[in-house]
Amino acid sequence: MLIVQKYGGTSVANIDRIKAVADRVAKTVQQGNQVVVVVSAMAGETDKLIDLAHQVNPSPGEREMDLLLSSGERVTSALTAMAIQALGHKAIALTGRQMGIITDKVHTKAKIEKIYGDRAKKALEEGYVVVVAGFQGIAEDDEDVTTLGRGGSDLTAVAIAWALNADLCEIYTDVEGVFTTDPNIVPEARKLEKISYEEMLELASSGAKVLQTRSVEFAMKYNVPLVVRSSFTDRPGTLVCKEDTDMEKVMVSGVAYDKNQVKITILGVPDKPGIAARLFKTIADANIVVDMIVQNISSDGKSTDISFTVPKTDKEKAVKISEELSNDLGAQGVLVDDNISKVSIVGVGMKTHSGVAARMFETLANHGINIMMISTSEIKVSCVIQDKYTELAVRALHEAFELDKAA
Amino acid sequence: MLIVQKYGGTSVANIDRIKAVADRVAKTVQQGNQVVVVVSAMAGETDKLIDLAHQVNPSPGEREMDLLLSSGERVTSALTAMAIQALGHKAIALTGRQMGIITDKVHTKAKIEKIYGDRAKKALEEGYVVVVAGFQGIAEDDEDVTTLGRGGSDLTAVAIAWALNADLCEIYTDVEGVFTTDPNIVPEARKLEKISYEEMLELASSGAKVLQTRSVEFAMKYNVPLVVRSSFTDRPGTLVCKEDTDMEKVMVSGVAYDKNQVKITILGVPDKPGIAARLFKTIADANIVVDMIVQNISSDGKSTDISFTVPKTDKEKAVKISEELSNDLGAQGVLVDDNISKVSIVGVGMKTHSGVAARMFETLANHGINIMMISTSEIKVSCVIQDKYTELAVRALHEAFELDKAA
Repeated sequence: MLIVQKYGGTSVANIDRIKAVADRVAKTVQQGNQVVVVVSAMAGETDKLIDLAHQVNPSPGEREMDLLLSSGERVTSALTAMAIQALGHKAIALTGRQMGIITDKVHTKAKIEKIYGDRAKKALEEGYVVVVAGFQGIAEDDEDVTTLGRGGSDLTAVAIAWALNADLCEIYTDVEGVFTTDPNIVPEARKLEKISYEEMLELASSGAKVLQTRSVEFAMKYNVPLVVRSSFTDRPGTLVCKEDTDMEKVMVSGVAYDKNQVKITILGVPDKPGIAARLFKTIADANIVVDMIVQNISSDGKSTDISFTVPKTDKEKAVKISEELSNDLGAQGVLVDDNISKVSIVGVGMKTHSGVAARMFETLANHGINIMMISTSEIKVSCVIQDKYTELAVRALHEAFELDKAA
Repeated sequence: MLIVQKYGGTSVANIDRIKAVADRVAKTVQQGNQVVVVVSAMAGETDKLIDLAHQVNPSPGEREMDLLLSSGERVTSALTAMAIQALGHKAIALTGRQMGIITDKVHTKAKIEKIYGDRAKKALEEGYVVVVAGFQGIAEDDEDVTTLGRGGSDLTAVAIAWALNADLCEIYTDVEGVFTTDPNIVPEARKLEKISYEEMLELASSGAKVLQTRSVEFAMKYNVPLVVRSSFTDRPGTLVCKEDTDMEKVMVSGVAYDKNQVKITILGVPDKPGIAARLFKTIADANIVVDMIVQNISSDGKSTDISFTVPKTDKEKAVKISEELSNDLGAQGVLVDDNISKVSIVGVGMKTHSGVAARMFETLANHGINIMMISTSEIKVSCVIQDKYTELAVRALHEAFELDKAA
């Protein structure tokens, strides 16, 4: 088998952890497999570099930011290859460029456009373990280093698994798999044996940090079999795969929350066609991903309030754009609410069960939690609430949908 | 003017130092110059990475070592470019690859073969300050990252100054220039206003740490005007340039010492032609630079002792080679002496003054210092002595040649 193993920051946090990764890789090789390893930066390293950058420049150039941030993964790829060599196996470390990962030019949030992978294929044939620096690629035209955004190493791993036609992509992290919710909040949270791509995608985009959203999208699109498991134990993890008949029996698979959003409201916008389109196009052009949108038409029918949520990291840019637009349109101003969180329930079973959303709203109401925004998909219901109620809401929903009990 | 400014590890040791570098660069730009900045890794960073490497693998692969070590300069190049941007100037950070620095494939000690520099030229024309990650290049055939060895950023700077036909190459460090000897040992040591390439080369290869030997060779070969100065003050430094008539008046320009060598002796080697050639070819093939060599023919004319010195970092490899050769040749064994140092006097005036070497030997003898090996060049005399006498010897020689007095 050709296996891609991705190790996150906590799995390569120090020399002992890197040696443990090398042991696991060596074991996988000894079982007769070819292995491509994708590594993140050592835990805390990326944040340290971001902090240094902001100390020299409050708004550092994104091209230079990518050059800076990509160094963390280069360090771990070299160290991990050395650790595997120390166990008597052949290992070669490849940067994003050497792996042939080609991206667009959107620095700090680049998208993978293609993967050449010739050098990796040749090295695998020659019996090498290939260790790839995650999170990075190069822009095709100028060969500048790009990075793939937070959690980008997951995407690196999934995309390489696809490009090399790997049999399995294992995502090693510090938790044992995908849980019904965050076990730090609900001790009864249960590890799922498997979960569909769709549900995983909704959980990830709803704030579950176990996998990066884009990597799940990619895996779903190309049907890359994914296992999420812990690098600290030998227990089996959670298989993320296509939906099957088993899964439909479960109404709700998990409860997720996201405290990293901020709610922006433009008040008293004249109610004319094209306003929302203009606002959200401007925001999209600034590469900000808007999550939820609510528009209330006022009673007089002449003005409207538009609320939306964006990641906290994009708050400054989004507020600036909103204020400019508010001025241009003669709206009444911009409100920003930092103290919100989003709580979501996810499950493929919702497709065939009615009343799931209603039960969620009722559960929150019973605990005196006010719902500020609602958004739904075929397999998800999300509510924005005051952030102080997050843990209470997650616990209440986990209990209401009996997630502690195996299906 | 086009000026190349190289900032060493202590000059970019922390955020405040990087900001100070940005200030100096901005000032140079405001005076109407184009500037290329070459930066080292933050002080201590390279040693930290080497330590990590040896923790995962006692003899890490050199290809991976280069990938690892090159990351330190990438970090400072990005941060320095950001700091210059923060002052309102355009700045672009370039890696060794993006600067077009092509080297041979000798990992950890690569030699520069050519520099393309197209991207840097274009950026300079567009009004950018170009910030280059020092110490690194890429091997032409496989595009693997290579590093240029200790102090390699000096070489990067000089080579770029040559490739871009710069008017001046400034080497910024934590000392104010080239001194008659180490001021830590001799408080009366005097800063030289200028010094010839030849003398600088002999001083550097004799242990003076202010400039890397290969960078001086390169500057001499291509006549690149070099200034060594401090990034902590605004005082003028030392100009390193072609020998002129002024300089010949001085007999000795400086006293250098080197405690980083080890002496290896192969005892009782059968005295046949070709033995020394075989030994030193094998050592050269292992990319070890031998400094001094002494061969004593024994009284019976049948065997000989061969002594030579190598850098301490190469001790293990050199001893292994020597022991193998000793066995092959039926020699009597190998002696290793760690406790040596080399003390040298350097000066272009030696060419025209006799008795300089004699005065050196006499001075050492007067202080009871035994000379173990001697080597001379046209403008240098070096003596290997017991390392405990190093400071005493340096002080005595500085005084004997009256180096505290301006010429």
